[in-house]
Amino acid sequence: MSNEIITEVDEKAKAARDAASVLATAGSRKDAALEAIVAELEARAEDIFAANARDVAAAREKGLPENMIDRLTITRKRLDAMKQGVAEVRALPDPVGKVIDGWQRPNGLRITKVRVPIGVIGIIFESRPNVTVDAAALTIKSGNATVLRGGSESINSNIALTKALQAGLAKAGLPPAAVSLIETTDREAARRMMTLNGVIDCLIPRGGASLIQTVVKTATIPVIETGTGNCHVYVDRAADPSKAAAIVVNAKTQRTSVCNAAEGLLVHKDAAASLLPVIGEQLREKGVEIRADKATRALLPWALEATEQDWYTEYNALIMSVAVVDSVAQAIAHINKYGTHHSDAIITEDYAAAEKFVAGVDSAAVYVNASTRFTDGFEFGLGAEIGISNQKMHARGPMGLEELTTYKFIVRGDGQVRE
Amino acid sequence: MSNEIITEVDEKAKAARDAASVLATAGSRKDAALEAIVAELEARAEDIFAANARDVAAAREKGLPENMIDRLTITRKRLDAMKQGVAEVRALPDPVGKVIDGWQRPNGLRITKVRVPIGVIGIIFESRPNVTVDAAALTIKSGNATVLRGGSESINSNIALTKALQAGLAKAGLPPAAVSLIETTDREAARRMMTLNGVIDCLIPRGGASLIQTVVKTATIPVIETGTGNCHVYVDRAADPSKAAAIVVNAKTQRTSVCNAAEGLLVHKDAAASLLPVIGEQLREKGVEIRADKATRALLPWALEATEQDWYTEYNALIMSVAVVDSVAQAIAHINKYGTHHSDAIITEDYAAAEKFVAGVDSAAVYVNASTRFTDGFEFGLGAEIGISNQKMHARGPMGLEELTTYKFIVRGDGQVRE
Repeated sequence: MSNEIITEVDEKAKAARDAASVLATAGSRKDAALEAIVAELEARAEDIFAANARDVAAAREKGLPENMIDRLTITRKRLDAMKQGVAEVRALPDPVGKVIDGWQRPNGLRITKVRVPIGVIGIIFESRPNVTVDAAALTIKSGNATVLRGGSESINSNIALTKALQAGLAKAGLPPAAVSLIETTDREAARRMMTLNGVIDCLIPRGGASLIQTVVKTATIPVIETGTGNCHVYVDRAADPSKAAAIVVNAKTQRTSVCNAAEGLLVHKDAAASLLPVIGEQLREKGVEIRADKATRALLPWALEATEQDWYTEYNALIMSVAVVDSVAQAIAHINKYGTHHSDAIITEDYAAAEKFVAGVDSAAVYVNASTRFTDGFEFGLGAEIGISNQKMHARGPMGLEELTTYKFIVRGDGQVRE
Repeated sequence: MSNEIITEVDEKAKAARDAASVLATAGSRKDAALEAIVAELEARAEDIFAANARDVAAAREKGLPENMIDRLTITRKRLDAMKQGVAEVRALPDPVGKVIDGWQRPNGLRITKVRVPIGVIGIIFESRPNVTVDAAALTIKSGNATVLRGGSESINSNIALTKALQAGLAKAGLPPAAVSLIETTDREAARRMMTLNGVIDCLIPRGGASLIQTVVKTATIPVIETGTGNCHVYVDRAADPSKAAAIVVNAKTQRTSVCNAAEGLLVHKDAAASLLPVIGEQLREKGVEIRADKATRALLPWALEATEQDWYTEYNALIMSVAVVDSVAQAIAHINKYGTHHSDAIITEDYAAAEKFVAGVDSAAVYVNASTRFTDGFEFGLGAEIGISNQKMHARGPMGLEELTTYKFIVRGDGQVRE
């Protein structure tokens, strides 16, 4: 690793560390900074569009696919959406300082457990430049400093956006280093970030499965794993047919590229003959390819044969694996074995089946009679979302501002010593 | 890595994974298992002592130091303490199933956030065989399965203890694989555990700094870092002299080998001349060596000179670093720079100084007028302790049963789909 890369990453992370201690007790200045950032994004709009145009031109020259170029492009509408997002985060309640719990000990010690920022959060992300602004707004509001490392395709856009973010911080009297962008686009810079134990407190990778797996395997600092979702809808014997069809179609097709879209459909054997042809037809009308077990194919002759690998697959596309199961228990076992513990739903009017399913399925969000697509910080009412945690430590499921905090114990005494 | 090691670790971890799904909904059978374990530990006492005697004999043969042999030895009193510990954990409230939060969305979705077990917890520890029983009791009570990997010195003891644990589980109708011991003492077995993503949910290393650092650097699964404590007592200008002396002496000398013992003393310059000679003398009477800055040495001529490294050092011994500071702010800066964010105390009768200190010190536990030695699951009233987290993610400070759980969102609807 070149010394230059090490120097940039280490210096920015160290500056973020220092800035974090200011942000931790910045109170309403955080909101002032967010307000100033909205103004700076507008004031610097022309610079941002110009920088973005350079990224887009370079991407076209490299022959990147049109959907990547689309994600990279900052239109007027998208800049307005970024500003709107910052304003919405500003309006949320400050998570810092909340007393989560408190009690008194027999020896008179008074203990309170108080929410505080985590400190320095590293965010490693891919080509969408709006992540720069979203992530910065959430970390500022929650009193954290952040070190951002975006994809090389959006580097000019990210530099321009970061200038606006830092100018806003400065206007509110907060250290600009509270939001730092690593400008070196060498992959080694990301590697260096992942091992800065004691300087960066945690990493949140945002992007595709390969980026996330690289961070999980490489990092020696704590990582919050986000993103992968092999979600299921189980249509029980006692399902309401119209709810079943509407929920399956919504969960599969409303938006296919997202982690809370359903990839697998399980149908109880007693409901298969009456419901599968109806649901299958509605999926087919939406252009969904079905990969199915034998029992399903007997009812849907046009369905393809599923391989063992299909049950494990997050398609993120108009494809769905379908199987017939004998019982709620078999549905639970299938989901816990093949799924990614993200979001899974049962469709039933049977109380006992519903309770068995929510107790047995080991997923971040377990639904009864609703679409898996609701697993989202906004849909859950958290007011914001930095990502959806796919692990069990620290935070599970949608992460809002609270999930960007930790706590400290404050213990007040009057001379207590331990016997 | 040999295939044999891989096979043992993978098979036991996989069996633990399967057992975890039973434990997760085992309810009162967990208490029945803990009761049976107490009986099995007594019924198998002679086997346990005999196995332990083999470990002790091997340790003597290898010439291990007397303090390590002492930690290794299971006396009748220590076996009784293990049984007592299991009975106490059994008596604690079950953390699983608690509704932590809940609300309704405008679209009618009813969301509850419910505490559930983490799943499979790996525990890698050193020579104290009582950890086998303590850790198993806490993980069973919290509905988790555990894969234990102890030190090679205590392997026979651990095997005998695990037989008692597994027999107790079986008597309660729970899968014995809920507590699995890796019997291969090769270091590669621990390495294998650390990378079993998707099978083991998290690792808790328990032991010395070098063991913990190895796990933090090697593991690709989430780790809860425990143990290191460079803790401070800051004696403010407005300190009550008798509280100051009693707390400093208690924090430094009541037990020196533990992570919540104080290693550093900071004294406000206005209090130094009156308090340092008194406190210094009391420390000297307890046999404490003082390593100090120039201002302290002017008042305590017998003190040694501190190097920069001293400020960073967790002595775990009768040694204390001492410095005079100009202000609360300087004390906070010193603690945040040199400390390990574990436990730090201010001694003061000044309200503003106390509030400034608790807000500014970035530690798991921040004390006013009490000894740092109280940072402990039992002293905090958690009823148990699996360790003291030294990181900010998931859990911070003393970890009891709740900290061995995560949550899931249960979302109940009546046909909601996302627009």
